[in-house]
Formats: sequence, C-alpha cells, structure tokens
Amino acid sequence: MAETQETLLQKIKEQGDVVRKLKAAKESGEKIQNEVSKLLALKAQLGSEDAAPQKFVLKTPKGTRDYSPQQMTIRNNVLQKIITVFKRHGAECIDTPVFELKEVLTGKYGEDSKLIYDLKDQGGEILALRYDLTVPLARYLAMSKITTLKRYHIAKVYRRDNPAMTRGRYREFYQCDFDIAGQYDLMVPDVECLKVVTEILDTLDIGKYILKVNHRRLLDGMFEVCGVPVDKFRTACSTVDKLDKSPWEEVRTEMINEKGITPDSADRIGEYVQLNGGTELVDKLLKDEKLIKSKAAVEGLEGIKLLLSYCDILGIKDKILFDLSLARGLDYYTGVIYEAVLTQSIKVGNEELTVGSIAGGGRYDNLVGMFDSKKKQVPCVGVSIGVERIFSVLESKLAAGDIAVRTNEIDVYVASAQKNFLEERMKICAELWNAGIKTEQSYKKNPKMLNQLQHCEENGIPLAVILGESELRNGLVKIRDIKTRDERDVPRADLVSELKKRIAALGEKEMNGTA
Amino acid sequence: MAETQETLLQKIKEQGDVVRKLKAAKESGEKIQNEVSKLLALKAQLGSEDAAPQKFVLKTPKGTRDYSPQQMTIRNNVLQKIITVFKRHGAECIDTPVFELKEVLTGKYGEDSKLIYDLKDQGGEILALRYDLTVPLARYLAMSKITTLKRYHIAKVYRRDNPAMTRGRYREFYQCDFDIAGQYDLMVPDVECLKVVTEILDTLDIGKYILKVNHRRLLDGMFEVCGVPVDKFRTACSTVDKLDKSPWEEVRTEMINEKGITPDSADRIGEYVQLNGGTELVDKLLKDEKLIKSKAAVEGLEGIKLLLSYCDILGIKDKILFDLSLARGLDYYTGVIYEAVLTQSIKVGNEELTVGSIAGGGRYDNLVGMFDSKKKQVPCVGVSIGVERIFSVLESKLAAGDIAVRTNEIDVYVASAQKNFLEERMKICAELWNAGIKTEQSYKKNPKMLNQLQHCEENGIPLAVILGESELRNGLVKIRDIKTRDERDVPRADLVSELKKRIAALGEKEMNGTA
Repeated sequence: MAETQETLLQKIKEQGDVVRKLKAAKESGEKIQNEVSKLLALKAQLGSEDAAPQKFVLKTPKGTRDYSPQQMTIRNNVLQKIITVFKRHGAECIDTPVFELKEVLTGKYGEDSKLIYDLKDQGGEILALRYDLTVPLARYLAMSKITTLKRYHIAKVYRRDNPAMTRGRYREFYQCDFDIAGQYDLMVPDVECLKVVTEILDTLDIGKYILKVNHRRLLDGMFEVCGVPVDKFRTACSTVDKLDKSPWEEVRTEMINEKGITPDSADRIGEYVQLNGGTELVDKLLKDEKLIKSKAAVEGLEGIKLLLSYCDILGIKDKILFDLSLARGLDYYTGVIYEAVLTQSIKVGNEELTVGSIAGGGRYDNLVGMFDSKKKQVPCVGVSIGVERIFSVLESKLAAGDIAVRTNEIDVYVASAQKNFLEERMKICAELWNAGIKTEQSYKKNPKMLNQLQHCEENGIPLAVILGESELRNGLVKIRDIKTRDERDVPRADLVSELKKRIAALGEKEMNGTA
Repeated sequence: MAETQETLLQKIKEQGDVVRKLKAAKESGEKIQNEVSKLLALKAQLGSEDAAPQKFVLKTPKGTRDYSPQQMTIRNNVLQKIITVFKRHGAECIDTPVFELKEVLTGKYGEDSKLIYDLKDQGGEILALRYDLTVPLARYLAMSKITTLKRYHIAKVYRRDNPAMTRGRYREFYQCDFDIAGQYDLMVPDVECLKVVTEILDTLDIGKYILKVNHRRLLDGMFEVCGVPVDKFRTACSTVDKLDKSPWEEVRTEMINEKGITPDSADRIGEYVQLNGGTELVDKLLKDEKLIKSKAAVEGLEGIKLLLSYCDILGIKDKILFDLSLARGLDYYTGVIYEAVLTQSIKVGNEELTVGSIAGGGRYDNLVGMFDSKKKQVPCVGVSIGVERIFSVLESKLAAGDIAVRTNEIDVYVASAQKNFLEERMKICAELWNAGIKTEQSYKKNPKMLNQLQHCEENGIPLAVILGESELRNGLVKIRDIKTRDERDVPRADLVSELKKRIAALGEKEMNGTA
C-alpha cells in the first residue's frame, strides 16, 4: 500500500477522463472496455485501502436516506394501518432475501433492467439487489412449489433511477404488496385486490381518489385492430403508459418516431385511448365492429364487464373508472390492470401538493411459469401500495407543522428535585419496568429539575414521579400531571397501582379525543 | 450479442481455470490481476445477456433463505415482544439504507472486513452492504450532529461468512439493536442495557441464562501487566474471545504462535482469564499488586464494581457474572462489555439443543468521532439481541411439532353449501370487511362444502357463516363454530353484531387460556 489515497483518487480522476473522452469520441467498444478495465482496477484498489486515513463527505449513498425517529413513527403508523387491512383479508406475511441470483431478475423488466443494482463479483454467485417484490414472489412460488397463496410483503427494493427525493422518489424505497396466487374463477380474486385498495385509501384518509382499470387483453386487441404488429404490442403499451404525464400529441410522436408505428395506426389508437367510463362504455365497445373482430379485445371487455359487476356487489363501483389509456409499464401483466390516483391535491402548509398515482397492480399469469422447469403456471393478481408517496405527503405535513408525532411511548418519567437520588430513582424505575409501565429517567446523577420537566414536555410524556426527601421519609411519592401541572402525593406502596389507573384514564381520554 | 450463453459460460469456466492455476503457482500479483480482469469482463457480459434463455438452478443466494408465512409469524411474534421491551425503556426507532458508501465501513471491522459485500461499480459511488447496525448508527449520529439518542433498530445485515444454516447462521440475517448515545454519568445507561436484556430474555421465556460482564480497560490493564506490547492488545483480545469455544491450551498456542505473545505473558494472562465471580472478585483484584499498577485495570475494576452495585439496585444481580475471559471480538469497544448466554440446553422434539450466546454488546465511546471531521465524540453503549438464534430454536420446535403457529388472523369464513351463491357471499364479505371483521371466502364460484370447512380447520378459522337458500328466504343465516360444529341461525340483519359478540367471546376465552 505504498500509494496514498490522494494519489489514487487523482489517478482515478485522470483515468475517468480518459474513458469519458473515448466515449465522447465514439471510439471502438474494445478500446473503451480496455480503459474501463483500468479504471475499475484503480477503483478496486481504493476499496481495499483499509488502513488509509479517511477523507470523504459524510453522506448516505445517492438516492437513499436515513429514517429519523419521526419518519419511522410516520412510516410505522401508515404500515400498521395497511397491514390491518391486509390481515382483514386473510393475507399471510412472507419475506425474501434482499438480493437474488442475477439470473432470476434477468429478462423480467424490459428496458428498466439497466436500473438493477448488481453486487460485485467477489467469487461465487452473481447477485443483484431486488428490483421489486413481484419477481421474488414468483421465484418463491416456483421454487417452493406453492400453488395457492395470499400474501403481503413489505420491504425495500432498489432501482438505480434518477432520484427525485423532494417528490418522494428514492433509489431505495419501500414496496408494500398484496398478491393472490392460485387457479381461481375469473375476476374473483382480482376484485378483492381493488376492494383492498379502497379500504387502505379510506383508512389512510388522504383525500379523494379514483381507481382506473383496464385489461391487457383489451389493449392487445386494440393494438391488433389498429394495425400494430404483434412484436410491437409491449413497446406500444409502454408508450401509451405515458399518457398520464404527457399529452397525446407527444405520445403519438414517440409511437411514430421511436417505436416505428405507422401514423395511421397511431391515430386509430389515439381514438380509443381517450375513452373512459363505466359499464355503458364496455357495452358500447362490445358493439364496436372493428374491435370485436379481435378475440383478445372481446375477452378483455368481457373481463372488465364482469369485474365492474363485482365492484358493484362489493359497493366500490363509484370509485372505479374503466380507462382505455391505462397501460402500466411492466411487461408481465396479462389480464386486468389498475391504478389508484388521488384526484385532489393535498394541502401542506400553504401549498397544494399533487400526488397522482398511489397504488397499482394487475394480473400476471405467466410469471411463475418462467421459473418452473416444466413451465407450470400459477396465475397471480396483486397490488402494490405506493407507500413512499404517502410517507412523503405526511413528512411534508410534519415539516409544515400540520401534524405532530410522538416518537416514544413513555408514560412515566421518574424525576427528583434533590441531589443523590439516582439510586432511589433506579429502584422506582425497576419496579415500574417490572410492572410493564413505560418508564424513563435521566442518565445523569444529579439532573436539574427544570431539565427533567422540559424533557417530559418535549417528548409528550404525560406523568412524572417526583422523589423528595421529606415525602420519602413519610412513605410518599409525588405524581405530577405534566400538562395540568397538578401534583399529588400517593403512598409509595400504592405507586404502581395508582400509575396504572392514571395511565388507563389517559388512554381513555385519548380514545375519546378529549386529551 | 453474437455469442450464445453457453459459449460464454464455457469461456468463463476456462478463464477461471487460468486464474486458479496462476494463483496456485503463486504468480505475480500483476499477472493474476490481468487475467482476473479478463474473467470479470466475461462475467459482466453474462450479466447483460438479458434476452438469453435461462437455465439455472432455482435457489436463493448462498447463505440466504426465504421466510415462509410460518417463519414470518414466529419472527414477528418474537420481534413484537422485543420491541415492547425497547419501547418500555423509551427507545425510538430509526432505519438506515441497506448499503453505505464503502468508505464508511472501511477500517471498522478489523480482520472481518473481508466479509463485507461490495456492490458492483456501475458508475457513481462505491457502495457496500451494511455489516452491522452499529457503524451505520455512528455514521448517522455524526452526519446528523445528534448528541443524544436512545434508539432501536431492527434490520437485516450482510456478511460473506461461511453459512451454517442448520445452526441459524446465515449471510443475510436480522440484527436487533438497542443503543444509548450521549454524555452521561458512569454506568447509568450501561446498566439499563443489561436490564433490557434480562427483560427480553424473561419475556421470551427460552430458558435460564447468565449475563457475563467484563471491561475493555481491565483487559487492557491485564495485558499491560502481563507484558503484552500495546500494539498487540486488540489482537490478544480477539484471541481471548475464543475461550468460550476453545480450551485455554489452544488459545495459549494461538497467542504464542500466531500473535507473537511470549509464553511467559501468555501464562500470566491464563491465570487471570480463568477468574469469574461477583463483587468479591472485584475487591480481590483491586488488591492484586501487579494489576493495580495499571491505571487502566483500576479504572476497569472500579467501573465493574459500580456496574454490579447498580445491577443490585435494579434487582438483576443474580443474573450477572463478572468474567475475565469475556473479550468480545469487535475492535470498537472501549468500556464495559457483556454477553448473555443460555445456561440450559433447549428441548426440541427428542433432542437437546445448545444455544449459547444470545445477546451481546458494550460501550464504544470513540466510534462516532471517527466520522466527525473535528473528531467530536458521542459516547455510546448498546446491546444486540441474537434474534436469529431465537428464530432458529422456535423453528426447530415448530418442525418437531412442539409448537404450532397460526399464519393468518381470519375470524370468519363465508361459505355456502349450494351453487350460485358467489354474489351473495361477496355481499356478506363486503359487509363484514366494512365492519372491520377479518373475513375470507373461496375464490371459486362453486366450491365444495367439504373443502370450505377443511380450509377453516386447516387455518384455525373459528367461525363460518353458511349461506343457504331456505335460510335466506326466511331472512336467516347460519353461524357455525368450526371446533364444536355447533350451528345456529341468526337473523341476516343481526349478522355483524352477532359475529362481533362471538369473536369477542373467543378472544376472552383465548386470553384465559381456555380456548
């Protein structure tokens, strides 16, 4: 290790310039590869300089962040509400490793595969970080030979995308998925996914929303009758998917210039994708002479019709919109697809925040089979809740002072006004902990009374036990209500039972919203 | 992509052989590095062969596993109990990214640094997966300029170790940490960590245990008076740490042959490390003429003495053993260190399982300063609960049939004996879901009665609502108790309130252990 870190960093910078120049000059792949190898070798050296003194900017990796106690409280509260809904529908919980064999992820994400994080080859298997929770689920089902499962999975996934952290888009982010796997009757599990989404959005209470639905078979049929060649269905799909962000004119241009779809085809697609409505639109399209020539389109339309009738039965039809412009980016969908969109902006401080898409999913009947040596299929349908957007909204509200969160649950703080009470405080703490009471004290020997009470106020701790020499001599301790500042003495022997009574009363007050 | 996957695999195999031969022949580093670069380039090609057909063994990466619903239920139950204890002590929850800048981890783990998982350099920052939760905590504190924090963090960490999965040792595994950061009075936060460990082990109820404690300053002083050079303290420490698995003779040999400690020094160390006891041992050692010549030793002994007196006050002294052979492997400890060890084997089926160490930690006052540009220290003390070992024991018990777990929480299954009742079932399900009742039904249009009841029995669902034509005509539905097979009709309009009553009664029965 004769080389210093600085020299090495300088060399890496220089070699990086060499590579960039070659790339800019569009030199041969081999030539560039050669210089890239040198660059990698230099960087590898950097990694192993364990003993070198450190000089680097203290930060989390690009596109990632720490979750502070406040953020974790928000996150855990949101997830708890979502899990309650999942469990109400009988979902079981599973987890999979954060990385998979690279081959498991290969060929599943189309153009987005370049966003996968690879692990370094340190000898052994070639690995990559999971990109979503759906492919790992499919791998799990195939590997474990499971043919029916209703599961939820909440975990972080990884995408080397351009982060837009102010809008809640990170390279490391939570996904929160609910899926039903199994060979069942048409649209029965599918409509339950929609019901789950409405229950979650209702319980989270983040504003009005609409659930857009469409069907991949209908999209296929639509492309077919509009004259798009079969091998361009998927790429046409991912272009249509941009309609929620771009106007039709831009999408049309991309179709023609980048996807090689004829202007005539594009225009015919353009007519369909502006349609949306309810059962009446399905019925109208089922009479569209061009469309019903396609078996796929009819299959899709009949699926949507059945789905809408089930939505009616479940009492969620007023929240559903059949929308032909909904396409969803991912390749693997095969049937119904859906997306929940907030239709109101959200007030944060003095600003209005537009959130848009907040949940999405669909049916993917062929994914599990891709992992099975005999191509045995396990049909699946599922939904992913966009929890990061929800976190992001609530964090903004917190920052704007619209909401407050308590990051600990302590009920009792054990304090003392006098010196040399550490041991006495410790005894009381132990007694309260053993009684299951959430208790805290200062870790200082002789803390100031003011600091102790301030700690209670800052942390929303409702009660303090205050020890004093004269009280203790008389077998008493003081209980102080932090909010009202009311103080009263109780016999030392009754402390635990008295505190339990007071805590229960506070809990009831809170439940009744009178706290 | 002219090259097929097979050709590529063959080339990689051949190039791998070349590298192995060079290594075996101990050729020059440069020569080997050259061929390794070629190998890496070939492997990189493999990674980007997105379109190639897949032929690979379906598995999770080496040393990792999926968590099935049963395993997740066990895991969530254990973690819930642990979190309850953490919250009882006022700990807040944080989270950090799964990867860190490589430099953050560099130089923190001594010899174990080779076990860190690196991410591939895909342009941008050099990253590695977190190895524990302690270094990320220190990075977080320094970066956010936080000087006091009591936090817990439960997350997966990554080590490229040799997995021993049957004994619960994985490359991806949960850590479950509780730490107190801040400048406080001696041993006050430290003893609370010990109290937390006892509360957790008591609530988990997995057998008798002992909490061994020692002090790094005492170890330093001991090495000093035994004639070990200062620069060999840490390596001597990691050798002493092996005493829980190896006999003294082996440890002695390693000290002399591998660590370059003189036989005389080793023998003197050998006398100390066989000592263990309580306050009386501290007092005895405080009279040891050799030992008290070392300032460090005296400081350590006085620390232990204070800690033991606090343990007495908190009522946990009978669980504490002052043990001079306890050393802990990690470099960063600076004060008290401790380790909880199960002293009984655990009965699993017909076998006895020895678990050993189940929690460990200590004080590390200099780690945060390593990340601060002004070397500003934030003293910390913490403990890590060995949850994987606990999971592993419970999973073995599950496999042996000693315990059972329910993986869903469904209270009511909506069934029908007759055909064409799907829509009626759906209506009832929606009603129950909207009332917050955990409800499930078959996703089949016309499921068989037997299969529906079997599903209830297999999944521990206590109640079934059974729909029939004649009952519905009379405005009635049947509620069946799955265990007792008792069936009774209730008015359709009273279904929700009746079910809520029944579920509450079942809950009480379970609480009283009479279910």
